[in-house]
This record gives sequence, C-alpha cells and structure tokens, in this order.
Amino acid sequence: MSIKVIIAGFKGKMGSTALEMVKADKDLSLAALLDPFATEESFEGVPVFKNKEDLIGLDADVWVDFTTPKFAYTNTRFALENGFAPVVGTTGFTTEEIEGLTALSVEKKLGGLIAPNFAIGAILLMQFAAQAAKYFPNLEIIELHHDKKKDAPSGTAVKTAELISQTRAALQQGASDEEELMAGARGAEFDGFRIHSVRLPGLVAHQEVIFGAQGEGLTIRHDSYDRVSFMSGVNLGIKEVVKREKLVYGLEHLL
Amino acid sequence: MSIKVIIAGFKGKMGSTALEMVKADKDLSLAALLDPFATEESFEGVPVFKNKEDLIGLDADVWVDFTTPKFAYTNTRFALENGFAPVVGTTGFTTEEIEGLTALSVEKKLGGLIAPNFAIGAILLMQFAAQAAKYFPNLEIIELHHDKKKDAPSGTAVKTAELISQTRAALQQGASDEEELMAGARGAEFDGFRIHSVRLPGLVAHQEVIFGAQGEGLTIRHDSYDRVSFMSGVNLGIKEVVKREKLVYGLEHLL
Amino acid sequence: MSIKVIIAGFKGKMGSTALEMVKADKDLSLAALLDPFATEESFEGVPVFKNKEDLIGLDADVWVDFTTPKFAYTNTRFALENGFAPVVGTTGFTTEEIEGLTALSVEKKLGGLIAPNFAIGAILLMQFAAQAAKYFPNLEIIELHHDKKKDAPSGTAVKTAELISQTRAALQQGASDEEELMAGARGAEFDGFRIHSVRLPGLVAHQEVIFGAQGEGLTIRHDSYDRVSFMSGVNLGIKEVVKREKLVYGLEHLL
Amino acid sequence: MSIKVIIAGFKGKMGSTALEMVKADKDLSLAALLDPFATEESFEGVPVFKNKEDLIGLDADVWVDFTTPKFAYTNTRFALENGFAPVVGTTGFTTEEIEGLTALSVEKKLGGLIAPNFAIGAILLMQFAAQAAKYFPNLEIIELHHDKKKDAPSGTAVKTAELISQTRAALQQGASDEEELMAGARGAEFDGFRIHSVRLPGLVAHQEVIFGAQGEGLTIRHDSYDRVSFMSGVNLGIKEVVKREKLVYGLEHLL
Repeated sequence: MSIKVIIAGFKGKMGSTALEMVKADKDLSLAALLDPFATEESFEGVPVFKNKEDLIGLDADVWVDFTTPKFAYTNTRFALENGFAPVVGTTGFTTEEIEGLTALSVEKKLGGLIAPNFAIGAILLMQFAAQAAKYFPNLEIIELHHDKKKDAPSGTAVKTAELISQTRAALQQGASDEEELMAGARGAEFDGFRIHSVRLPGLVAHQEVIFGAQGEGLTIRHDSYDRVSFMSGVNLGIKEVVKREKLVYGLEHLL
Repeated sequence: MSIKVIIAGFKGKMGSTALEMVKADKDLSLAALLDPFATEESFEGVPVFKNKEDLIGLDADVWVDFTTPKFAYTNTRFALENGFAPVVGTTGFTTEEIEGLTALSVEKKLGGLIAPNFAIGAILLMQFAAQAAKYFPNLEIIELHHDKKKDAPSGTAVKTAELISQTRAALQQGASDEEELMAGARGAEFDGFRIHSVRLPGLVAHQEVIFGAQGEGLTIRHDSYDRVSFMSGVNLGIKEVVKREKLVYGLEHLL
Repeated sequence: MSIKVIIAGFKGKMGSTALEMVKADKDLSLAALLDPFATEESFEGVPVFKNKEDLIGLDADVWVDFTTPKFAYTNTRFALENGFAPVVGTTGFTTEEIEGLTALSVEKKLGGLIAPNFAIGAILLMQFAAQAAKYFPNLEIIELHHDKKKDAPSGTAVKTAELISQTRAALQQGASDEEELMAGARGAEFDGFRIHSVRLPGLVAHQEVIFGAQGEGLTIRHDSYDRVSFMSGVNLGIKEVVKREKLVYGLEHLL
Repeated sequence: MSIKVIIAGFKGKMGSTALEMVKADKDLSLAALLDPFATEESFEGVPVFKNKEDLIGLDADVWVDFTTPKFAYTNTRFALENGFAPVVGTTGFTTEEIEGLTALSVEKKLGGLIAPNFAIGAILLMQFAAQAAKYFPNLEIIELHHDKKKDAPSGTAVKTAELISQTRAALQQGASDEEELMAGARGAEFDGFRIHSVRLPGLVAHQEVIFGAQGEGLTIRHDSYDRVSFMSGVNLGIKEVVKREKLVYGLEHLL
C-alpha cells in the first residue's frame, strides 16, 4: 500500500520539486494538489484544487506544505484537524504556534514534521560534529558559499557552532600569544573557536568542521549542490510521520 | 583524588608513550611500573617491578597493559583478581578469553577495557559512517597509507566497511553497464560498494568515507599522523573504567 | 572595438551556451548565427542563417563552431577561406585534417583553435600535474564522477596520466611485497602509478592528483559542476585567436 | 662520478638532516664536515673541521650551509672564493649581499643557491597558484598550522598572496553588499581576496589555494609534515648548482 500524499503549494519551486519526487517513488502516490495559482483542474489524473476546504474528507495520509509563512500555520492546523499528517517546509512559525500544533497532533494521534532544513546531510554533519566535540574540543568551522551570498557566517554555520558548544568543554583555542598580522585572518570567534567564511563563484553551499588533537585530525564535510538534495529529507519525513503520533519540529528528531 | 595507574610493558613503544601521558595529566598518578626488561628499581620516585606478583596488594586503581599477546591474557586476569581495572591495548584475545574476563569483571565489580584500536577519531569515523549509511546508501571508501604498507585494503577500512554494511540497505552501486577500461580502476568491491587504497610516501594513516546523493555529498575523514594519537583513547579508557563494573571489548562502548 | 563573432550550431546545447556568453561580454558582439535547424530570420537583431554560404563577405572576426563532426571540418575550412578565425569545439578531426587546416591558417595569416576540451581548469590541472611529477614521481590519481558514467577511468584521467608519464622518471610505486586482499583495491595501474575511479550520485566531474614525498604532500584538484565552465575557455579562445596567425590544436597552447 | 659535498653546520637540526640525505644518495658523497661545535675529528671516515680555513684546497664540489645568519654571508663568500658551489639555507641576507655574491659567482663561473625555503612542494604551489590566477581571478587562501603558531597569516601565505597579485587582474571579490555578522568571518583581506588561518593541534604546516569560476573550481594544496621534506629541495639544489655558472636566490629559479 502506498502512502497517499497531498502537496500544498505545488506551483512553487520546492512544491514542484516535491511533486516530482513523489511521482518517482513507487511507495508514494499523489492524492491531490493544492495551489491558489493553479489554473488546471487535474494534473496527470490527480485532482487539483485552489481552496483547502475542498480537500475535507479526501482519502490521504500526508499533507506536504511548501506554501508561504502567511498560510503555513493555518494549513498545518487544517491538515491535523482533517486527519492528514503534515510535513511542512515553510519557516516562520512562532514557538507558541509550534506548541499548539504539537498539542493538537497528540490529541488527533497524528505524526507531523515542521522542518526549517530538509537536508539530511547538513543535519547529520551537525549531529556528528556535536558528538565529536565531546572528545575533540579543538575545532574550526569553514563554510564555503557562492559569492552572491550576503551574510557571513552562514546560518547553518552558526547553528552548527551552537550545537557544538552544547557538548564541547569550554576552551579558548589557539596560542595564548597569537597575533593577527592582518585583521580577520583568524576568522570569527565563537565560544573560543573560529569560523571562516569562503565566498567564490562556482561554489553552492558547503561546510567543513575540522577537529584536531595530538597526532590526529577528523574532518566532516557536507556539500550541497542543488535544492533537489532537500527531497531525501521530505521523503524521509513522509515515511516517518505516518508511523508516529506526535508532531516534531526539526528533521533531526526523525533521524 | 587522582586515579592511580600501573603500567605494564612500560619499556615498549606504546607503554612508554602511555607513561608520558599519565605523567602529563594531573588527574592521574603513577602507582607502579612493570616490565621484565626493566633494570632500574624506581623511576622518578615510582617503584619499578619485573614480576607481576610483586604488585599484589598495591594501592592502585587501573592496570594499563601494553605487553605482548603471550602475556596479556594472564596479566588481565591477574589485574582483575587483584582489584585493578584493566585497560588493555594488546591484541590477540580469543572470544572465549574475552567472555571469561568479562564474567570475572562482573564478579569482581570492576570495569575494564580491551581495545584493538585506541584512536578515538578512527572509531568516531566508523560510527558516523555507519549512521550516515542508513540515509545515504551510496558511498565509497578511500584509505590512504604510507607506501611501505603491504596489505590493501587496510584492516581499518575493512572494519569500517563491515560496520557500514550492518546499517546500509542492500544496493549494488554504479551504472549497470559500467566498464573498467583498465582493471582495478573501480577499486575493490565490498557488498555493492567500493574501497580504494592509496599508497604514497609522506602519508601515514588516513581514511575517507564519501557519501553521495542527489544534489549533495557528505564526507568523513580521519587523519592519523602519530601513535601519540592513541593516548587520548587510553586516557579516556582509564577515566571510564573506574566508573564501571563490567569489562568491555572495544573503545566504542565507552564513547 | 568589440570582436565580432559568428556562432555555428547555435541551436545546440554548447552553441546556445556560447551565445549567452558572447551576449554577456561587452568586449564581444554577435555578427551572425548559423544553424540548419533555425526557423527564425533574426535573433535580437542579429541575422540568422541556415547555410554557411550566406555568410561569405560578412564583417566578422571569429567563427565559433559547435556543430557536429560531420560538418566541423568543412566549416573550419570555410571559415579560414573567408577570413574568419575559427574556434572549434567539435571533436573527431583526423591528424591530416588538423595539419591541413593549420597550413591553411598560416597561408591566410589567421589564428584559430580546435579544442577537444575547453575547461581551462582541467587543462591547468594537467599542466601542473605534469610539472610536479618532475620533482614528485610518487603520485596517484583519483577521479570522481556521477554514477551514470559507464567507463572507468575517465578520458580526462587517462589523458592526465599520459601527460604525467612524459615528465616523470620511471618508477614502480608501492611496497615491493604489496598484496591486494581484495582485487582492485589498489586501483588501475598506469606506468607504475595508480588511478582510482569513484562513482556516486550527486557528483559531476572531479579529478585529484595526489603527490607524496618524504614528509610532504601536494594535491591538485579540479571540480567541474556545469558545462557553463567550458565558456571561459571559449571566451579565452576568441580573444586569443584574433591576435595570432596560426591555428593551434588544444587550448593548452593558448595558456 | 658522485658530487662531493661539504656540510657546514652539520651539528644543527637541518645540517644533520642534510648529512643523512647526502649519505643516502649514491650520486652524492661527503667530502668534509664543518661545525665549530664538533668534538670529533672524523665521522664515518669523513674528516670533520671546526674552522673553515682548514678546508682551503679540499677536493669538493658543493658547500651546503646550514649555519646561522651571523656566519652564512662570510661562509658563502669563502665557498665561492675556494671553488665550492654554495647551497645555502640560512636566511637574513641583505639585497646588497646577494648582489655581491651573485657577481662573485659569475666571476668564478660557479653556480650557487641561496634559498629561504627548500620545500619544493611549497614553491610549486606558489608557482601554480600564480599561474592559475591569470585565468581564475577569484580565489581564497586557507593556511592551516599547529596551534602553537603565533602569527597569522603565515609567512608562506603572505608570500603566496604577493605572487598571486602579480599575475591576477585587479578584482574586489565577494558580494558588494556582503556583511560580516561576526567580525573576522570573511578572513583577512589582501588586494581584494581573502586569507584564512586555521590553528589546531595535530596540524603541522598546510596551505590551500581555492579558485572558483562559473561551474568549476580548482584547488591546490600543500601539506608539510616534517623538516625532512626540505631535503628534496637541498638535493635538487646540489645537483643543479654544479651545472650552472651563476648563483641564484630562491629555489624557484632551479625548477
């Protein structure tokens, strides 16, 4: 029996990529598509809707949501109330909203996932780095992105650094008499360790955590080339939420 | 209160490196040194012995053993019987010996560790690789060693491959019509994935596991430059066995 | 004064990418477009032709050719005879054809370029590797491609190995008593050194040459993500051929 | 016929490593050893001296000098005057001294080498990086050293950056609206590109230059683990100076 999937926001970039992913996986099937900008009434035999209310009573298991922050909260609540386990990639939920949706999911005995990041590889890197930092407190982060990126360090690097800090013993790295002959050479300081941001054309989104200890080194690197990489996380989310009875925030809770 | 440590085999390479490590850690202190080849009666105020029987009744917590396969089993048994938690780096124990020693440790309520590999970094790499393989079944292993190494692939690479196989869904990687224009180009096959062995002067012992999925990659690499790297594992072993009441085989059980 | 460019085969993948590249460079301008499959008569004000004879007498400097092996030779000859310096990315020329075209270019005092590979980075890697091999005869090649690739090693790796062999002193690498516990672990042998081919989803086309010597290592790596990378080579070709009076085979002769 | 070598400063770290290197190369032979701290009169049959004057008239080809800045200039002059081609690893020569010694070498028709850096790999990296920068003006340097190193960036990184600047078209890299959310994240700026310094235990001396362009990347990395790596440069120096009739400053002039 395949898992029956609704895709809300299937006209957007992420939604249409999710549509292709569902079509390509024989363990999944499309139950319905939703998008206010849809002009067709069906797509390859799958019914297409413009208003979510038309989906009440539909035979489906999972509600994949790649809409906008404006609609995502009410969509997720609607999904839970109508028996669809939500898998939501839209960001911008408040803590209160997440708590309310989690409580509702428990009441309805439905699994669910709200994930700011669907890249399994990026999440594994963070988990591994946090675990390695217990034994190797000396580390530096190098993140590398395309040269149109405005902010440095990347949000992923900051999140990684925060997770590492939770497991790493406090330590001010580097020589005590260390000196920068050129300002910035040693990178940004975060809790006693350093973060370096590389920006070059041709790069997409990459991150490396390098650990060093007497006589050895450990390096963990994630390379992200394409948004298609998020789909393995969406796929995993769909297959996991149907087995669960509580919504979680963050893909790491399903790994 | 520091942990009081005996070092058996302190005249050997690993034993003497362990001696330096214990001296350098203020949470540890030397209780006694043992080696049949010792000629001195004390070393920096620490008593030196040639026969293990002379250590009966000594006030010590941990027995670090870097002797030879011939002596390691009786030494470990002796340690447990006399109230010293063993941390053993010698290889060559049989399954029966390990089971017997484990039972004895439980009876004596003593922790203990027998470890074929003390490199924490190498063990973390294996654990991370096995975990990542659950989500990324497409992977290849590249191990790189100095050019005096005789066997390929390395024992560590084979061990890593075995651990990966336990968590990875069965999969024959590569294009179905793949063709080697030169024999060996695609490396050694292990359970549907490939292992490549690089041998070059200047290298010491390095291993890389590369995972690939649509639009992304994850790489985990360990570099080992010097036997001093094993000492962080020995140090961890000493500090963990005193908290436990059962001997374990493999440093991974203390991570 | 901008360089006036004709693009033959502008309806194909490479040709249309070249068209975008020329449009985006203010030092270049489009003089005409040619393709037997063209249906339009002009494109953004640039005249479009289906037959090369219609271009006789046109005011242009360079003839960029991304057609097919069937047409490339006669096209290149036509370009030279009509005063256009050819920049040709089609493969399949015979040695006699190249010699004939080179002689014609000298007679006409026109520069020209026929290049089987326009990736400057790939060519630099080959040149650097060949130069380094003079001083570091111990090396291995690792090439990494997507897992749809059929042949191993890649053509680029073989080309790189051949160039390295021209500068490297003869040497059988590895331990003399080296043993493969699994067939293929040590890779393919080429002239005493090894080539390893990695195939994984997510990868595109990558190559690494690792040199090792006592106490040091040198690594040169090229990553190719997209055919757009060839355009820097085409651009360089256009700008160089107008300064020269002889056709060359291989972009390396213009670096 | 082997090349007959004198080693001045053979009691020091570099000098004694050079002694081992000469002994191990059957194309070289030891003619004499010099060191004011020597206490022996001969070493494995090779005469040992404390004063350079005792070497006048000796049958030797090359004078390897790993003494101190205080003695290196007079030693080098002495070598040239007495017919020995100097290979000098001591730093601290003034421009005038180098010019004077070069003139003297021409007069004496002797080759010679004064080299602040004997690591061939490090020099090749610099040369390759400078050449690649002609075609790939977007680049960043990452240098990685042990965590006892005081200054950042390393002298080698600054030298590399200077050489790159000589061939690279002026360019201010990165997004024009780039913003550092944490000071130093983007590294040190040098002539429009960035340099990052990593400091970790376990590392020795490593440098990576990463080039990026549309759809591709080129990376050149040098790893130095041990001073023994300098010996291939000393060896090359010895074998090259005997073929030449003019002293050069910098090993790059012999590559």
